Amino acid sequence: MGCIQSFRQCCDRPKNTNVRISLPAVCFVWQIAMIILFGIFIRYDQQSDAHWIEYRKSQNISSDIENDFYFRYPSFQDVHVMIFVGFGFLMTFLKRYSFSAVGFNFLIAAFGLQWALLMQGWFQSLDPMDGKIKIGMESLINADFCVASCLIAYGAVLGKVSPVQLMVMTLFGITLYAVEEFIILNLIHARDAGGSMVIHTFGAYYGLSISWMLYRPNLDRSKRLNGSVYHSDVFAMIGTLFLWMFWPSFNSAITNHGDGQHRAAINTYLALASTVLTTVAISSLSQKAGKLDMVHIQNSTLAGGVAVGTAAEFMLMPYGSLIIGFCCGIISTLGYIYITPFMEKYLKIQDTCGIHNLHAMPGVIGGIVGAITAAAASEGVYGKEGLINTFDFKGDWKDMVPTRQGGHQAAGLCVALCFGVGGGIIVGCILRLPIWGDAPDDNCFDDDLYWELPEDEESIPPILEYNNHMQNRDATESDFSMEQSQN
Amino acid sequence: MGCIQSFRQCCDRPKNTNVRISLPAVCFVWQIAMIILFGIFIRYDQQSDAHWIEYRKSQNISSDIENDFYFRYPSFQDVHVMIFVGFGFLMTFLKRYSFSAVGFNFLIAAFGLQWALLMQGWFQSLDPMDGKIKIGMESLINADFCVASCLIAYGAVLGKVSPVQLMVMTLFGITLYAVEEFIILNLIHARDAGGSMVIHTFGAYYGLSISWMLYRPNLDRSKRLNGSVYHSDVFAMIGTLFLWMFWPSFNSAITNHGDGQHRAAINTYLALASTVLTTVAISSLSQKAGKLDMVHIQNSTLAGGVAVGTAAEFMLMPYGSLIIGFCCGIISTLGYIYITPFMEKYLKIQDTCGIHNLHAMPGVIGGIVGAITAAAASEGVYGKEGLINTFDFKGDWKDMVPTRQGGHQAAGLCVALCFGVGGGIIVGCILRLPIWGDAPDDNCFDDDLYWELPEDEESIPPILEYNNHMQNRDATESDFSMEQSQN
Amino acid sequence: MGCIQSFRQCCDRPKNTNVRISLPAVCFVWQIAMIILFGIFIRYDQQSDAHWIEYRKSQNISSDIENDFYFRYPSFQDVHVMIFVGFGFLMTFLKRYSFSAVGFNFLIAAFGLQWALLMQGWFQSLDPMDGKIKIGMESLINADFCVASCLIAYGAVLGKVSPVQLMVMTLFGITLYAVEEFIILNLIHARDAGGSMVIHTFGAYYGLSISWMLYRPNLDRSKRLNGSVYHSDVFAMIGTLFLWMFWPSFNSAITNHGDGQHRAAINTYLALASTVLTTVAISSLSQKAGKLDMVHIQNSTLAGGVAVGTAAEFMLMPYGSLIIGFCCGIISTLGYIYITPFMEKYLKIQDTCGIHNLHAMPGVIGGIVGAITAAAASEGVYGKEGLINTFDFKGDWKDMVPTRQGGHQAAGLCVALCFGVGGGIIVGCILRLPIWGDAPDDNCFDDDLYWELPEDEESIPPILEYNNHMQNRDATESDFSMEQSQN
Repeated sequence: MGCIQSFRQCCDRPKNTNVRISLPAVCFVWQIAMIILFGIFIRYDQQSDAHWIEYRKSQNISSDIENDFYFRYPSFQDVHVMIFVGFGFLMTFLKRYSFSAVGFNFLIAAFGLQWALLMQGWFQSLDPMDGKIKIGMESLINADFCVASCLIAYGAVLGKVSPVQLMVMTLFGITLYAVEEFIILNLIHARDAGGSMVIHTFGAYYGLSISWMLYRPNLDRSKRLNGSVYHSDVFAMIGTLFLWMFWPSFNSAITNHGDGQHRAAINTYLALASTVLTTVAISSLSQKAGKLDMVHIQNSTLAGGVAVGTAAEFMLMPYGSLIIGFCCGIISTLGYIYITPFMEKYLKIQDTCGIHNLHAMPGVIGGIVGAITAAAASEGVYGKEGLINTFDFKGDWKDMVPTRQGGHQAAGLCVALCFGVGGGIIVGCILRLPIWGDAPDDNCFDDDLYWELPEDEESIPPILEYNNHMQNRDATESDFSMEQSQN
Repeated sequence: MGCIQSFRQCCDRPKNTNVRISLPAVCFVWQIAMIILFGIFIRYDQQSDAHWIEYRKSQNISSDIENDFYFRYPSFQDVHVMIFVGFGFLMTFLKRYSFSAVGFNFLIAAFGLQWALLMQGWFQSLDPMDGKIKIGMESLINADFCVASCLIAYGAVLGKVSPVQLMVMTLFGITLYAVEEFIILNLIHARDAGGSMVIHTFGAYYGLSISWMLYRPNLDRSKRLNGSVYHSDVFAMIGTLFLWMFWPSFNSAITNHGDGQHRAAINTYLALASTVLTTVAISSLSQKAGKLDMVHIQNSTLAGGVAVGTAAEFMLMPYGSLIIGFCCGIISTLGYIYITPFMEKYLKIQDTCGIHNLHAMPGVIGGIVGAITAAAASEGVYGKEGLINTFDFKGDWKDMVPTRQGGHQAAGLCVALCFGVGGGIIVGCILRLPIWGDAPDDNCFDDDLYWELPEDEESIPPILEYNNHMQNRDATESDFSMEQSQN
Repeated sequence: MGCIQSFRQCCDRPKNTNVRISLPAVCFVWQIAMIILFGIFIRYDQQSDAHWIEYRKSQNISSDIENDFYFRYPSFQDVHVMIFVGFGFLMTFLKRYSFSAVGFNFLIAAFGLQWALLMQGWFQSLDPMDGKIKIGMESLINADFCVASCLIAYGAVLGKVSPVQLMVMTLFGITLYAVEEFIILNLIHARDAGGSMVIHTFGAYYGLSISWMLYRPNLDRSKRLNGSVYHSDVFAMIGTLFLWMFWPSFNSAITNHGDGQHRAAINTYLALASTVLTTVAISSLSQKAGKLDMVHIQNSTLAGGVAVGTAAEFMLMPYGSLIIGFCCGIISTLGYIYITPFMEKYLKIQDTCGIHNLHAMPGVIGGIVGAITAAAASEGVYGKEGLINTFDFKGDWKDMVPTRQGGHQAAGLCVALCFGVGGGIIVGCILRLPIWGDAPDDNCFDDDLYWELPEDEESIPPILEYNNHMQNRDATESDFSMEQSQN
């Protein structure tokens, strides 16, 4: 810990936020690297290659509709919307950071999904025949999932890092994700349909650890910008709703064809519905006049979807899903009220979007629920074939039994936690180097550092500034106003 | 009528808008009730249960793609978007009521869909073998449909009721819906694919009757807030467009597999296209300078989708759909211009969103069109099997003929009307009790009653207020501005 | 050229922007014409007619899931979202033109799709048996595609034309589109899955030619309105993201069932991801302080989707898609920086949205890429059946070989270019007639001409105007402010 402290100090030098060299360099070099690696490694899989028609006939598949595209594409598009509009707009709630929220989310997701196709491919779908990675619709969904973990981490550091730091964070995040996913799903054989452990727990602790490493003692100098305005809260609701509505697709996107996808969607739908009511209840209870807080509505209403992730394809029963949602709405909202301020004050973890309440806690709960429900699974409930099918007790794992599966689930959760915390600390160290162009403490949460902003009336802090500080205004602004007044 | 008047007076007491006890209580108690009832009654159906794999083999179903999930899930997600983003954002047009519009819409929809699964399950899919309700994708769509009727009703009372009243309104609305739906679809055997009668007519008259019961003679005291600003109108267009685009999914979501879904989507697509043109025409004609009115564009463009609902799966022919859309665009826009002010002035019905023009009239038209087109159906047009299939002339109804079906359709419309008006009056009585925390007449359409609002410049009415009332401004606000001006 | 100049002068008369007669007249008359033509010509196709059930049995189709609806409907809905929300919101970036952007987009798309069903039907799906056009899901997607070309053209003239001009532009645009599409796809037998040539090249040059014909030398009089404000840029990002996310559906919507749709979606997904990184790189490089420009992020990130359109269903290989996206991000962003100002200054083409950079150049690149990759196709890569299937070397074209196909692709690109430029000049002439109600030069980009605007604070240009020009303010405005200040 001492060495971390001293490392911290050595990195605290004056800030230069100009990213004109570093950002284009990172984008160009990495994109060219992607092209080269894709050229060497990535090819279409059986279902998307032009040889499909011959393959289909050789396998006696009666119709094109059995191409995996038709099983997964609608879910894929919903997940895609969650990644780009959902996560992007959820973070637009800050009054002057909407461009960065939605723009950098766009940038790192677009990079991350390419890198994820490679990393996940090397670990999971390398064809032993020709050494190539074969991609299809399921790979694309998995890449989007992988990206989600990094976007969750972005939520913790929103407003405090430069786009170059975000790119670095994504590069390492995706890499760590691919490794922990391989360990959890393949080596440990845990099931994690909606990624409560693999995506949410890992992503959230990864982001929180980075935020802890990048702790800014003087962040309150940017307090004026760390809040919402009326319209920015409405924009954020677009993100919330698209996440909420499409979460059933997220949790069912890569589950088994047939009843697996069907059941995962139903469970998620119910858990989310239940979460909304308890979130509203706690939010109203927590305020003197019973008024609701937009922060809770925007975030905690989603906690049920996170927590039901691992167990979404299990026979949770509809009431089981409701119970999970019920608890998570309460816990997540209480988190915003008590835990986030506590963490900032005592643990030195500044969590801009409150991902600890939305992803970390519900993710861990999801992992635990998964372990319990897996351990409790029985042939009576699932049917003999249903049990084998749902838990994939096939091949090397054909001797597995539900109780042992429960243990493996718990082990998987621990791995996700360790990778999140450990990886986050290491990457946090790297991001503390004073070369990345991050914002000074008094200019966090400000789009002006990285974006050409339109000169609109809203960007001029109002009335009083004008009357009291006329003399301080720079020439451009006055010219602009003059021009307007003459038209 | 006299007793209604005296009841009205007895309920007009001073208002207390604090919902800190009532709202959390309602949310918690009802959610717990849901969990208990779901525990007792609700299970997965054949298609979403883990026994599906065994069922599939026993039925010689060749592929998982024939699971109902793949027939209905894309439509379900579109309907889901309509419910949460469509209805939610459509109501954000008010300048200071966007939080409530989208937030309370979210709350009551999340509660309503749980209650709808139970109510509709008891009436329609109780398994006689084990007394359980079996749910699958179609149930979820039906629950969303059921919720839609309550969200329509919300449109009439937008800005004038508390969240607790909305919850009560939803509880009764869903209950009434399930009953009238059972009567119309099962007992009367009317067809109503897109719910012109069951959803729109019922929902609209339910809302209008409640609004009539809750008449506020002094509502013009809130006139300053009963209007839009530029950006709020753009937000509302998000709602309009998602409703408009996904309406073909709404009308085709639960129609027959194959040509039924296909035809319903085409008919709805065409009717909506036609409506846009006549709405624009009438809107432009109605203004001195030919300028368009956003209220019309946001609402009346959707009327064609409502009116084509009942008949969407019939052989309307493409031009038939265009004609329906053509008429409804005209009628709905004229409704906004003439009927809404008339109703407010003479009938004492204050209809914030104009649901009479968007849902009530087009819904009734849709019911009538359904009756006529059903009566006119023939084997020549539908084919022998097509006719039986489309109108479900099977089982108990195998002796039904198209002309009689027309009569049944008309009967269904009457039932929907009666339930809407009758139910609305009764529920309106309940909502007049002075315990629900609704807004006083001079503070309607104001988010500030139920939401913690950000302190943004936009919430301070501009310039003149500052210059004239400097002395009145409270300390916090000035500190805030000072702080801003110094940075 | 001399005659064009003199024609230009004769049309420059004072402007009357009242469209109260012309707009309703156009809407009514054309909609009635649509109804009549639909009545004469349009019927349901085999898949959407009630006779489907009999047809299915006669063809031994085992399940309703093989109805084309289930292959195409999810893609159709995504395309629909791109047309109405994607294109509509992409153009809301102007500070006071959001109503027109999203509203007129809505109007012309709703008209255009009806006319497109007729025009494309006459050329491509007239049933020789009964002289009727048979429509199904694929026709609806094609109609949306056809409309896209006109919405692209709208981008060039955004803010400078009246809704009546837009309707005329759409009428002719759809007509020209149907002809060039027939020539390119049917007579020349070029392949163009995502319409790089047919949609983007044609649409962009059509719009640019019209803009050239409608050149306004004094457009800088409206300079104050030709820019964005903070929130309008966030609205525009909604459009960008929905276009970006759903572009894989656009390019795969009408490709072959099975691997064709699958591969087109993957290629487009990758090309778009790559484009984002190079757009960000060039945007940052182009500014002094390395700041990003929202115009580039909103537009150039989409260029990869345009450029991969023609070749989306070919065996481009994943790295091939990345390379296309890589180049287009660079070219498109450089276009915004250098070419758009150049075109405005020297070529007298005012291109409001920069469609030359987003659609024209990438469209042409897409056509060239299509020609090269088609010419390079081989049985080794595609498989014997795959090659025939992908390039449709069947029927009259069964002797076609890839190298010749490459030539046909190039010919197709030329046809699209000629139709775009030629058609645009002719239609531009028509639109110069002084009867259409377009805006005067000092009031372009202003919603106030065609819309009833809410009287919100934001519409009053701020502070300075108030202080300096109190005397000029009209009575209504002051009354309004007074009223507000008293509440």
